[in-house]
Amino acid sequence: MQIAIVLFDRFTALDAVGPYEMLCRIPGAETVFVAEQPGPVRGDRGSLALVADKTLDEVPSPDIVVVPGGPGQSAQMDNEALLGWLRSADATSTWTTSVCTGSLLLAAAGLLKGRRATSHWLALDVLAVFGAEPTGERVVADGKFITAAGVSSGIDMGLTLVGRVAGDEYAQAVQLGTEYDPQPPYDAGSPRKAPAALVAELRTKSRFILH
Amino acid sequence: MQIAIVLFDRFTALDAVGPYEMLCRIPGAETVFVAEQPGPVRGDRGSLALVADKTLDEVPSPDIVVVPGGPGQSAQMDNEALLGWLRSADATSTWTTSVCTGSLLLAAAGLLKGRRATSHWLALDVLAVFGAEPTGERVVADGKFITAAGVSSGIDMGLTLVGRVAGDEYAQAVQLGTEYDPQPPYDAGSPRKAPAALVAELRTKSRFILH
Repeated sequence: MQIAIVLFDRFTALDAVGPYEMLCRIPGAETVFVAEQPGPVRGDRGSLALVADKTLDEVPSPDIVVVPGGPGQSAQMDNEALLGWLRSADATSTWTTSVCTGSLLLAAAGLLKGRRATSHWLALDVLAVFGAEPTGERVVADGKFITAAGVSSGIDMGLTLVGRVAGDEYAQAVQLGTEYDPQPPYDAGSPRKAPAALVAELRTKSRFILH
Repeated sequence: MQIAIVLFDRFTALDAVGPYEMLCRIPGAETVFVAEQPGPVRGDRGSLALVADKTLDEVPSPDIVVVPGGPGQSAQMDNEALLGWLRSADATSTWTTSVCTGSLLLAAAGLLKGRRATSHWLALDVLAVFGAEPTGERVVADGKFITAAGVSSGIDMGLTLVGRVAGDEYAQAVQLGTEYDPQPPYDAGSPRKAPAALVAELRTKSRFILH
């Protein structure tokens, strides 16, 4: 089972590495980081680079596609090299997935029309522009499309997908192996839970934190 | 504020990227991935490489040290180039931290003697060999040392440290910006919660999942 994780300039690291850390444990999985050009791809802060070992063209038909988001997503919204690859990879994939604003790339490729999907809470409205039906859920499965909310939600998406592919018991073993028993020191991780003033502040200054 | 995240062959990716994704948002933070040699460093599956932009020697006195774990940790336990750097970096650091079996490297460097600390649940016993006091907690702070449990716990550690450095309100903004509102699809993320048979299986076959 081949799993392709797409990289592009200014992606958000945890968007990609969260699902990676879950999915790479699927028995028989071959995980490959792909980008238009091979080599290091810089994340959204410039201080992290993940290596793309293969070009998009070299991985034409992965079983699972994972598209992270990040500030760099906006520059990809009319990049036909990437959008075309997403369409053709999706034509043969078993699962097509995204984290954070990665869903906007799936939407821009025309893959989410009429489908329920999610994205970073600050980007949900954009999904509707492309004909998707945005939800506020953390992980949304609609057929073979699984989209996740902001940044950290890719871990929940990845573990959910491990369960679909390898069974609940195996997924629980992955959860135990990665000690995924989250205990955030605050309870401000969604706009429904965070102080209203903070939500309003991020809505107006979203680039400060999100980008 | 300079934050050094240490890489070595066969590190576990989420151990490093979880805290990175939180800490890099500290105002004025300069995050740098360091290793003995600069360039790509392969993770524990061979399919992911993060780039070390600087050598250990080039970053002698970071404010925050982050040491991830992973199967490659065992090969570093007598690597004086790394252990010596940990000692000298710790001499001037404000915070010295670890995720997963990264705490065993801090312990091997002699930094955790008499201190409360944690590690991956399968590695807790080893901490005591080096004179530390293992606990089953997810994030343990003892003075300037903050150690975290297995793999995914580095996110909780990172967010805790953001709060210490930049204040609770800012840390909540980071939690909201990264939408860290975890909703694992199972409740098997610790040996206290997982089915007993699964815990026993991982204890005997731990390399299967952990390594």
